[in-house]
Amino acid sequence: MGSGSPSKFRIVLDAMGGDFSPVNEVLAAGEIFKNHTDIDLVLTGDKQAILKTMAEKGVSFPQEKIIHASQKIDMSDSPVASLKKKPDSSISVGCKYVAEGNAEAFVSAGNTGAVVTASTFILGRIEGVERPTMGTFFPSESSVSTIFDVGAFVDSKPQHLLGFARMSTIYVREIYNIASPSIGLLTVGEESEKGGKTIKETHTLLKDSGLNFFGNIEGRDILKGSVNIVLCDGFVGNIVLKFGESFPKYLKTLLKEYASRSFLNKLKVLIVRSVLRQALSPLDYQYYGGVLLLGVKSVSIIGHGSSTPLAITNMVLRAKDCIEKDVVKKISAAIAESPMKESE
Amino acid sequence: MGSGSPSKFRIVLDAMGGDFSPVNEVLAAGEIFKNHTDIDLVLTGDKQAILKTMAEKGVSFPQEKIIHASQKIDMSDSPVASLKKKPDSSISVGCKYVAEGNAEAFVSAGNTGAVVTASTFILGRIEGVERPTMGTFFPSESSVSTIFDVGAFVDSKPQHLLGFARMSTIYVREIYNIASPSIGLLTVGEESEKGGKTIKETHTLLKDSGLNFFGNIEGRDILKGSVNIVLCDGFVGNIVLKFGESFPKYLKTLLKEYASRSFLNKLKVLIVRSVLRQALSPLDYQYYGGVLLLGVKSVSIIGHGSSTPLAITNMVLRAKDCIEKDVVKKISAAIAESPMKESE
Repeated sequence: MGSGSPSKFRIVLDAMGGDFSPVNEVLAAGEIFKNHTDIDLVLTGDKQAILKTMAEKGVSFPQEKIIHASQKIDMSDSPVASLKKKPDSSISVGCKYVAEGNAEAFVSAGNTGAVVTASTFILGRIEGVERPTMGTFFPSESSVSTIFDVGAFVDSKPQHLLGFARMSTIYVREIYNIASPSIGLLTVGEESEKGGKTIKETHTLLKDSGLNFFGNIEGRDILKGSVNIVLCDGFVGNIVLKFGESFPKYLKTLLKEYASRSFLNKLKVLIVRSVLRQALSPLDYQYYGGVLLLGVKSVSIIGHGSSTPLAITNMVLRAKDCIEKDVVKKISAAIAESPMKESE
Repeated sequence: MGSGSPSKFRIVLDAMGGDFSPVNEVLAAGEIFKNHTDIDLVLTGDKQAILKTMAEKGVSFPQEKIIHASQKIDMSDSPVASLKKKPDSSISVGCKYVAEGNAEAFVSAGNTGAVVTASTFILGRIEGVERPTMGTFFPSESSVSTIFDVGAFVDSKPQHLLGFARMSTIYVREIYNIASPSIGLLTVGEESEKGGKTIKETHTLLKDSGLNFFGNIEGRDILKGSVNIVLCDGFVGNIVLKFGESFPKYLKTLLKEYASRSFLNKLKVLIVRSVLRQALSPLDYQYYGGVLLLGVKSVSIIGHGSSTPLAITNMVLRAKDCIEKDVVKKISAAIAESPMKESE
């Protein structure tokens, strides 16, 4: 769909995904129905529970846009097993709805592994992609900074990391309008020989890739924004992402302790909090609009289990942005032009 | 040496290690000579340069306690190659001085890889230890929190990680007086099957180890202080450590930007800075006293290249603490009691 198209952006939202489902999903759906009329939103999940929540919260949303799914995948469910055991889950029903061509994007704040697996198998991988990758915007001192992979897969091989680099390059180019995004390989030292075997081999592949490879970067370079794409295996990326997100809460605890020491401290901390609320807002995941899964045939956006209504609304808007900018088609075209080699 | 011993704590400080060497090392040596008379400090490095700096900075330090070393390993030097090429480096000379029984500890803010390699080969590994490990205190909301490994080695096998867990348990018990330190295995999810092959196998080893194994932890648990020991491979630990240390600087940049928006903002930020300086002080690596290398036959403390004189002084005091608490002997005894199996 081109940006000038008059038709609506068709997006499916998993109503049973997040920790506060379906409440936060229903609140987000109401907001989108009211204020984003260019989006044709569909909810999947327990229809009775959704209608009951709508009534309780006074939310308007068209009944016919709710597709009933009798099962729900929990956060603790094993991804692959639960998809087999629960074929009528809100995640599977939503992905099938998209795969059948009824919508362009699927959005969920549910079990990350299950959404990745369902997206990979039901939406399907783009021709030539061995491993999809999940990445997100990351705050930094300068420029646009993203991190790939943040946990779609662990134990990635050099060839997979090269694939992540290629897909994220297109994503950052299209979404953030950066002609040639720079890529930094996250490791323990700047020198090319630093890091394990996988890092050394990936370094060589990236150097010969034609991509804008900056070189190795270290943990201290992430927040500096030295590069547009911080490239790493999902194991490291997931730990870095969750560690970074926990920082504001840690700061809050430190300030609480400081405030408790005297009345003057308490007054100072009131000012500090108001300033930090604004200064730290770039760190607030609510505004990122979720994490995009790259390498599957439709747009798939995955959010935090603890997503607020605002976070879920922003995930849907991120999905719209990806549809509008034809990210999936552009990745497919780039991969077709220069296919990725299968590893091993 | 027991805690009641009248003899001095004999410690060697690499005067050519840090980015500002020998200035910061000489300033720290002067401070220790003046105010810590229970420490018998020796400096290794370029004697002329050290004496010149002493004169320039007005530092008193006994000349006979300076051992000349004609070579210096740079930060960019390859660890193994540089130790061979520069046999008379301040690192090698210092480690040999300790290995020959003239001192109990070696302290350096130099090339980490070179200090790890020199300590491993010149000081020697404790009988039964295949891989030494490097770890450090880490700030958290509650209790004592440390992280091992932070970069002594990458691509650690399950058996190595088990060894790190055992050595760090003794370290935390002795240094922080925690009878049975809890260990969390850092991965991408709490469930035992989360993470790659190495994590799954390590999880099983830890469960059967007799150690106080808490289970898997995630990136968000590090600052919560859910456990006393965050256990991970040196690749991940190094990235987490450097990422965490970069946070205060990032915050400073955010505040600067906020202050630039109005005069009122500028005033508010003055208050914020004074509060954060105190509240964030636990994050300041200067106070940790460097990173200890566990598993070698003497105390070896490794600091940041950018160490200030205060940081270097605290590294020497940390070395004293380790000598006083007989950490090396206690690790040797524990390993001898229940030897680690060699992996593969």
